Amino acid sequence: MAKQRIVTLLTDFGWSDPYVAEMKGVVLSVSPDATLVDISHDIPAGDVLAAAFVLRQALPYFPPETVHCVVVDPGVGTERRILAARYAGQSLVFPDNGVITFVERDQPPEALAVVRNDRYFLQPSISATFHGRDIMAPVAAHLANGLAISRLGPHPERFQVLELPEPSQAEDGSVVGQVMYTDRFGNLISNIPVDVIRDSLGGLTGVEVACGGRPVGPIRTAYAEADIQQPLALINSMSLLEVAVNGGRACDNLGAGTGAEVRVTRAPGRG
Amino acid sequence: MAKQRIVTLLTDFGWSDPYVAEMKGVVLSVSPDATLVDISHDIPAGDVLAAAFVLRQALPYFPPETVHCVVVDPGVGTERRILAARYAGQSLVFPDNGVITFVERDQPPEALAVVRNDRYFLQPSISATFHGRDIMAPVAAHLANGLAISRLGPHPERFQVLELPEPSQAEDGSVVGQVMYTDRFGNLISNIPVDVIRDSLGGLTGVEVACGGRPVGPIRTAYAEADIQQPLALINSMSLLEVAVNGGRACDNLGAGTGAEVRVTRAPGRG
Amino acid sequence: MAKQRIVTLLTDFGWSDPYVAEMKGVVLSVSPDATLVDISHDIPAGDVLAAAFVLRQALPYFPPETVHCVVVDPGVGTERRILAARYAGQSLVFPDNGVITFVERDQPPEALAVVRNDRYFLQPSISATFHGRDIMAPVAAHLANGLAISRLGPHPERFQVLELPEPSQAEDGSVVGQVMYTDRFGNLISNIPVDVIRDSLGGLTGVEVACGGRPVGPIRTAYAEADIQQPLALINSMSLLEVAVNGGRACDNLGAGTGAEVRVTRAPGRG
Repeated sequence: MAKQRIVTLLTDFGWSDPYVAEMKGVVLSVSPDATLVDISHDIPAGDVLAAAFVLRQALPYFPPETVHCVVVDPGVGTERRILAARYAGQSLVFPDNGVITFVERDQPPEALAVVRNDRYFLQPSISATFHGRDIMAPVAAHLANGLAISRLGPHPERFQVLELPEPSQAEDGSVVGQVMYTDRFGNLISNIPVDVIRDSLGGLTGVEVACGGRPVGPIRTAYAEADIQQPLALINSMSLLEVAVNGGRACDNLGAGTGAEVRVTRAPGRG
Repeated sequence: MAKQRIVTLLTDFGWSDPYVAEMKGVVLSVSPDATLVDISHDIPAGDVLAAAFVLRQALPYFPPETVHCVVVDPGVGTERRILAARYAGQSLVFPDNGVITFVERDQPPEALAVVRNDRYFLQPSISATFHGRDIMAPVAAHLANGLAISRLGPHPERFQVLELPEPSQAEDGSVVGQVMYTDRFGNLISNIPVDVIRDSLGGLTGVEVACGGRPVGPIRTAYAEADIQQPLALINSMSLLEVAVNGGRACDNLGAGTGAEVRVTRAPGRG
Repeated sequence: MAKQRIVTLLTDFGWSDPYVAEMKGVVLSVSPDATLVDISHDIPAGDVLAAAFVLRQALPYFPPETVHCVVVDPGVGTERRILAARYAGQSLVFPDNGVITFVERDQPPEALAVVRNDRYFLQPSISATFHGRDIMAPVAAHLANGLAISRLGPHPERFQVLELPEPSQAEDGSVVGQVMYTDRFGNLISNIPVDVIRDSLGGLTGVEVACGGRPVGPIRTAYAEADIQQPLALINSMSLLEVAVNGGRACDNLGAGTGAEVRVTRAPGRG
């Protein structure tokens, strides 16, 4: 309890309005020694998939006992529930809308509760439009103070996960996936893990990648291995196949975005 | 004095330039244990009204003894004064340009001073163009360290508040106000508090709202109560009447922005 | 070692993706008591000059023992080295691409090393595309914990600095420089230090400034000294000649940007 705990915030609130600061004020009111870290506030408004992806990528790099407060919540004020969970020694508070999907894929939860105990909500009353500030921020701060998740409410029988396209293997042996996320550099991050390429195609050498039907060459190890303004494929820091352009923006250069097909094929005449 | 104090920053500096970081470096040089919180740095350049609104919304969620440093300061380097004040147990440093307007409306100041004592300024000298870094940041940090506001300079006889349109009651009993702030979701936040609607129209049920002359229906309790892409009115987390579009941007959908008329009328044939 | 240390981050990662948060998680995993400060994450992608400028401007305002982690690194994954250095009592970790240029100009390094000791890297393995997270963040955190720079690797024989245009004196005595940085207000910051004007033209009074061939008048002391929407020149908070527009954007008003000529001439008929 005496130890400094990290509370992260992941929202679609942007940075211009007072909303993020209101949440931070609430967290620090409940847990004055919390270390606040912004994961992102620039998730596209209501984009649960993008938030789910960003959450999954950031989470493994935080130390145990970190508390993540995720407020990408287009259903705020409706019957959607708020959940609290513990995965891999870290705690999360989030709306039950599928934002936990990628974290859930990696491991089972160690604890899980529907957030109902209003003793841990902002007092004296909560709004219908800003549960991030009124429920999720104070609950996250109480978790940072050492509150057990089981104190928040009952264990849910089930909860939402997003149904997402998985990479598949075509008749010719190619691995076919799609772009799952486009980052600020215009890099196109696919849903194809390096392991699937290794398992399906016997390795990373001697393969060719195409994105949106356009060839981008073999799998390289660094952006700078392609010529300037030329596209390339590589395994990125998340162990996913990524299509990029050296010194440029792949999304513009290839005219492709989230949802575009990514295909990995054994190069003809090889192995 | 030994307790960790929060210092917030609210500016129009954006996030790309070194200006915000320079202020943070100065704060931490004077008050190494301060917890820094960004309220916003994306206030439109020189927009004192937007800053005043954001400050008022964020302030009640911070704990006592928080120090707020507000640098939306189009008059920097002119004769405009810098003030320090204490409201509701929190301290503020700000240019005397009306940015305190909404905070001042809520309660009288508990302390007030013109910032003149250059002992608390950045040493050895200050610039004419960046009083945020050279005066306001170090003064805020000294306040976080426990300095009394009265030590900063004399009590001013008067100070600037913005003259703002207030909601009024039309001959037919309607409440007529206007959009005061447009947030990143395109939500149009009016200057009509829920209490004015209750007092003037006898309650929130059985009323109809129009924005920029276009009807947006009754007052609802959640964004998701309207159909997707349809406009709605609700009382937002600041207890103000807000016009929104479920899953969309009201400012685009209704072609309305800050300054647009918002009208609340008792629905015909009711109560 | 027991003292709280500041770790700053300066990147071109933007705020929407998980990259900055991953770095912060790594820093806090290694150095749980570090105070994180964002210098900027909105450096234009791969713009080493802009990063070098922002770093130089922010650095003097941070206290001794601050550690700066600079990840504007278009050459990531190539043979470019990562360096650690100590300047003016502060430590820096940065790619060897010239981003240290302006800091290096001000003073010689007190310590310098090529970062090679993988004992201080992220375990168990590092990626080829994200050395900011896998090498620079953990090394910065170890430096914040008190690690000596000499432990990181050998002293380099030389390192990259950018070759930049310097202000020069024309035959008629004018000082001729150029715009080096355009900030979010549209202010045009030149490479002409106040001292060069004083030395070459005998002082700041009685001179006329032109930018991109358009006259902007004498050197003033505050933005508000020009009429609204009119251009002006002043010595900014970095002691550099800056061209601005009162209440407007000089880059738009003058049609000038980074690289545009800035000329300071003794006014005719004076001194």
